[in-house]
Amino acid sequence: MNKGIVMKSVGIYHPEKKIGNESFINHFKNMDETLGERVSHLLTHLGRQERYIADFPNENVITMAINASKSAIEKAGIDPLELDGIIFSTDTPEYTSPSNAILLRDALEASNAHTVYDLNANCVGMVVAVDQAQALMKCNKRLKKILVVGSTMIHHFGLETDPITYGALGDAAAAVILETVETDKQIGFIDSVYATRTDLRDYILMPECGMSNIYDSSIPEEKKRWKWQPFDTEEPESRCGEIIKQVLNENGFAVCQANMIFMTQFSEDAIKNVSNALDYPLEQFKYVGNQYGYTGTSSPFMAYYHAITQEQIKENDVVVFCSVGSGLTAASLLYIAG
Amino acid sequence: MNKGIVMKSVGIYHPEKKIGNESFINHFKNMDETLGERVSHLLTHLGRQERYIADFPNENVITMAINASKSAIEKAGIDPLELDGIIFSTDTPEYTSPSNAILLRDALEASNAHTVYDLNANCVGMVVAVDQAQALMKCNKRLKKILVVGSTMIHHFGLETDPITYGALGDAAAAVILETVETDKQIGFIDSVYATRTDLRDYILMPECGMSNIYDSSIPEEKKRWKWQPFDTEEPESRCGEIIKQVLNENGFAVCQANMIFMTQFSEDAIKNVSNALDYPLEQFKYVGNQYGYTGTSSPFMAYYHAITQEQIKENDVVVFCSVGSGLTAASLLYIAG
Repeated sequence: MNKGIVMKSVGIYHPEKKIGNESFINHFKNMDETLGERVSHLLTHLGRQERYIADFPNENVITMAINASKSAIEKAGIDPLELDGIIFSTDTPEYTSPSNAILLRDALEASNAHTVYDLNANCVGMVVAVDQAQALMKCNKRLKKILVVGSTMIHHFGLETDPITYGALGDAAAAVILETVETDKQIGFIDSVYATRTDLRDYILMPECGMSNIYDSSIPEEKKRWKWQPFDTEEPESRCGEIIKQVLNENGFAVCQANMIFMTQFSEDAIKNVSNALDYPLEQFKYVGNQYGYTGTSSPFMAYYHAITQEQIKENDVVVFCSVGSGLTAASLLYIAG
Repeated sequence: MNKGIVMKSVGIYHPEKKIGNESFINHFKNMDETLGERVSHLLTHLGRQERYIADFPNENVITMAINASKSAIEKAGIDPLELDGIIFSTDTPEYTSPSNAILLRDALEASNAHTVYDLNANCVGMVVAVDQAQALMKCNKRLKKILVVGSTMIHHFGLETDPITYGALGDAAAAVILETVETDKQIGFIDSVYATRTDLRDYILMPECGMSNIYDSSIPEEKKRWKWQPFDTEEPESRCGEIIKQVLNENGFAVCQANMIFMTQFSEDAIKNVSNALDYPLEQFKYVGNQYGYTGTSSPFMAYYHAITQEQIKENDVVVFCSVGSGLTAASLLYIAG
């Protein structure tokens, strides 16, 4: 018998406030007619239609994470007291002390969750966090159930003049519950491949001025927000294709043997390019970035949630998660459904 | 043959600027004579003599991490290109995008390090990060060498009126290089035990107002800094004793069979209490918090560095790391020297 680490459930949360493209296009048109046109093209290219924006100050990454986690706990049919650990992935932490995971644990009354910490790998964070959780569970017999949550509230910290952080992203959280099962089958998380390059390290910065300058009143507020300088996404897209293929091939699967692939939901066009490069059917990638905007760390799991809800994944299905975080780090994660 | 994950080297960095107790005591005496007296007692109780403070704006958590990492790389006698991953533990990140680990990787020119991310579990962060690194290395054959670094620059973000963050802490970084070895002996990282409680979750906050309120000019700057409300440390101390004993006993060792124990360097008094509770010789705990102040995430590894430098650890020695992060999470990590 081996240890298999499977996903017992997935839950998501999005704020109530839904915003369509029109409102953002008008926002930028009011600044500059040409900019409005460009934003309209950008949103079409990325495959956006709607997104949800957190109701500040009533909502933040922690409240969204609580809601997504409660949904995952309910779907798993477990008691929060069964959780042994909580990992919180975010690049918009509400606090750096204590960890957001501690505050989530408190709200869930998950009093037996002792392995509790935050992780930040930006938009690839939740993929990395799930990979870590499964590794810790394989190595530490005390960890039978871990909650991994990804939550981002980027709009609030963005610039009104930036089409990406203001218009193309959405606020949301996703949560998965990982469980250790004893099995003689090859199920659960199998392997992961990472690929990092650093030449784009200063294209996406938060805060642009660096945190140690945040109290300097001579620095304009806009430098204390997200900087998102557009870059050519061709290389990151082809890198995603490569590491999806690698994680499958090196574990005995051809790409066509994957039943579904859940990629970053940043751009529908990027998914089409990876689909073409891998000669893999577009319909087996799930795209939900049109409904939620780009929700960063949670985004591949927002897509996974929809696939689970629509019963598109059955036992023994081969699944790959793949995303890219700023800087850039890409990661692919191979999973066989339990 | 089994996989053992051992520490190949450890490096540390502290800023040049050294400050003795007198200067802090005078700082608080100038505010209020009684406060000055209290700070003097506090520093004695915690076992402080000196600490180093980062040279802002020339230094930050990333520059300190670069220096500690370079030292660890040099001591290991490896090329940065041999690194497969970099994990950066901090609760004073310079950026939340990209990860500080990405910027460290770039500075080190560690171009083959692909598993690259930040982690935050506050002062227990580096213990958690090392635990994760060893688990990932045991589960993923691609990871043979991982650099784990802990770096904190808290003084700069503290309040001038707060004895703890202003006077009792120090800025520093520590870095360890973990390596996978094939071995038939029981060496390397063996097990870990975590213990979390959340009733003290709002005693240590950064920023006190929450990050989503950081742009609100109606909130005074002091609420945008660290809040450190003193609390009774008796329970966390006894919890440390318990999980040090647990991680040893559950792996076949009596407490007296541990050769050294590296605890949080927050308080010399706390170490004495744990020493008494466990009936374990005080001299086998290494205390360096008198020299560096409390350096948070790096603190147990600052002590480990001194033990290594003084050749106090030999092959097959049984070692425990144990620390506590705000919120609170405590963790103990059992290691057998390779």
